[in-house]
Amino acid sequence: MKILVVNAGSSSLKYQLIDMENENVLAKGLCERIGDTGAITHKTADGRKYEADIPMPTHTDAFNCLVEALTSEEYGVIKSMKEISAVGHRIVQGGAIFDRSVLVDEKVIEDIYNLAELAPLHNKAHVQGIRACIECLGKDAPQVVVFDTAFHQTMPAKSFMYAIPYEMYEKYKIRRYGFHGTSHRYVSGVMTDILGKVEGTKIITCHLGNGSSISAVKDGKVIDTTMGFTPLAGVEMGTRCGDIDPAVVTYIMDKEGFTPDEMSNFMNKKCGFLGVSGFSSDGRDLEEAIANGPSDPRYERAKLAVDILIQDVKKYIGSFVAEMNGVDAIVFTAGIGENNTHIRGEVCAEMECFGIELDKELNEKTLCQSDVVKISTENSKVDVYVIPTNEELVIARDTLALINQ
Amino acid sequence: MKILVVNAGSSSLKYQLIDMENENVLAKGLCERIGDTGAITHKTADGRKYEADIPMPTHTDAFNCLVEALTSEEYGVIKSMKEISAVGHRIVQGGAIFDRSVLVDEKVIEDIYNLAELAPLHNKAHVQGIRACIECLGKDAPQVVVFDTAFHQTMPAKSFMYAIPYEMYEKYKIRRYGFHGTSHRYVSGVMTDILGKVEGTKIITCHLGNGSSISAVKDGKVIDTTMGFTPLAGVEMGTRCGDIDPAVVTYIMDKEGFTPDEMSNFMNKKCGFLGVSGFSSDGRDLEEAIANGPSDPRYERAKLAVDILIQDVKKYIGSFVAEMNGVDAIVFTAGIGENNTHIRGEVCAEMECFGIELDKELNEKTLCQSDVVKISTENSKVDVYVIPTNEELVIARDTLALINQ
Repeated sequence: MKILVVNAGSSSLKYQLIDMENENVLAKGLCERIGDTGAITHKTADGRKYEADIPMPTHTDAFNCLVEALTSEEYGVIKSMKEISAVGHRIVQGGAIFDRSVLVDEKVIEDIYNLAELAPLHNKAHVQGIRACIECLGKDAPQVVVFDTAFHQTMPAKSFMYAIPYEMYEKYKIRRYGFHGTSHRYVSGVMTDILGKVEGTKIITCHLGNGSSISAVKDGKVIDTTMGFTPLAGVEMGTRCGDIDPAVVTYIMDKEGFTPDEMSNFMNKKCGFLGVSGFSSDGRDLEEAIANGPSDPRYERAKLAVDILIQDVKKYIGSFVAEMNGVDAIVFTAGIGENNTHIRGEVCAEMECFGIELDKELNEKTLCQSDVVKISTENSKVDVYVIPTNEELVIARDTLALINQ
Repeated sequence: MKILVVNAGSSSLKYQLIDMENENVLAKGLCERIGDTGAITHKTADGRKYEADIPMPTHTDAFNCLVEALTSEEYGVIKSMKEISAVGHRIVQGGAIFDRSVLVDEKVIEDIYNLAELAPLHNKAHVQGIRACIECLGKDAPQVVVFDTAFHQTMPAKSFMYAIPYEMYEKYKIRRYGFHGTSHRYVSGVMTDILGKVEGTKIITCHLGNGSSISAVKDGKVIDTTMGFTPLAGVEMGTRCGDIDPAVVTYIMDKEGFTPDEMSNFMNKKCGFLGVSGFSSDGRDLEEAIANGPSDPRYERAKLAVDILIQDVKKYIGSFVAEMNGVDAIVFTAGIGENNTHIRGEVCAEMECFGIELDKELNEKTLCQSDVVKISTENSKVDVYVIPTNEELVIARDTLALINQ
């Protein structure tokens, strides 16, 4: 049985075709610059590659391109789209409506569209992706939607409510939703498998990448997470500021004459690693400058940018230990979490108070292995793991489970 | 030797006259509605009281009123202002210029005035207070300024820098300053006295009142604090929201059509306990509604408001434990910290992971005692104390020390 996983953005459409017999990825690709010049990059598991500039005025055109790529004789992996049992879509914002994945029907599409107010850039694009899929594969092809927010819906009110007038919650649904839920769910699930139980476990999952969030997962359920109403909150990110004094927002707007939209753009695109370092939003570039030492003129601010993230992660780990009254395991995942040995090492350094003891050698070795690796010592009271995330696999599994019901 | 302590606001002037022989307060009072109708409330240590409506067009007029009250035959405590050796002023914002208290000269006044950009409501009023003092007591009366921010100047860059473009720090001096420094300094000082050492101590000071902040004090020096660029950041407060997703700021501005000024006012005046509960900014009112139980229609939201603060404080304690790699003592101070047994109890409940064990009986007893009281059990690895704060005394002591130099 083959499942197609789709992640539709406003001008892009990522996809993976997964064979659920063995959970292997048969092919994956990206349609980009939708509505503009259009381009597709497509790769198969056996190493064939297809790249082309193709006009894609709409998401439906993009979807047609991926159908052609998947079924092409030269670089395809299936003969016909009929081989695909179902399509699973990643949806950023499920609001307080969706606490789990569901089969798509008109009501679900409408709900996702209406939630666009809370995620303007994402949800409308997701609906375009779903509609494109219906146009290309027909109404009867089963589709499933998997939400970034769903895994966080178990948070108690004291975690998801802000200390702002209650009417703002009633009127605008302003509350913490949390994001990266599919990733937190996946890696915390792998971790509970390792621990051999779900009930009684206290896990902190650190999804650190270009976007970053950390979650406290108790008994398999999220009780708190760092991202908030939007994916801007929490720890420092590639270009996002994370938590700042909210008065800084109005201060900068006043000084720079920014509109709310301009300020939102500023906080999402100009801050984080990029803003502090002044030269890159990519942790690898910052690590390179740090490795060069103080003779590199970029050193000081690169180090500051990275030190801020390390401090942020340490602090949230502490917060979540307090909320759960302990921690059994800490998991690192995503681009930085899986590959940046420096940040992992510093986050776990001088944390003996929590019983955390990192095996420095194991930590240094664990780089781009795409394997689950324990990086804490045998004596460590807290297990520290690197667990490569796989959101597409979760989407495919949920899709399979729902069509089998 | 007698020291006058002055706290000048934009339309008010609080004062205490302290006898430094025994550190007793001889009299204290408040001039309010300066620039408007004007009123003074004055009390002496032996119970005499004076209240009057007196026009006070300027801070100088207010200062003249307090001079009259202090030297009056009927309700005064001194014969002449000549008995006062010096005046100590509370200053909210010392920026990165002042890391300690200093004697006032023209340069200092100018620096404080120039920092008004960072604390518009406060610093200009403080300068008016200093000028009024010069006009009434003459140029030669020694004056000292004590800054709310000074004690926090030991924070490392990773604690005080935000993940926003570095130019914002250079251009506008946007960084974490922290506030309530005089209070954190006082109570952490009492705590190190109790511990019998400064070096090697790790203390978390929770100043919880109408405004609230928490500090991590290691080796007697602040390494992090919850308030930020302004006193809006950190935990939930009476009318302030504390930390929120910065995107919530621009979202509400967009929806409600608020200017930066209006939004700043909203976040400072309409949020926190008041906004969540919908009926009061005062923790005592909330506790009353909670004590009434669910039959009180205010119960649910009062409880939510208080639960959010409890969660915030717990989380910051955890953060600071992580940053210091442990904690020796936790101190509660200010209105809520000294008096709200429920919040103290809940903050320290289920924190065995840190070695915190509260003595519930001692905690319940410690109410309005104005005494230093230990509320943790003998077995608790972390000492938990209630230490009533006394910012005026710190200002008076600093003033005395500087004029004696």
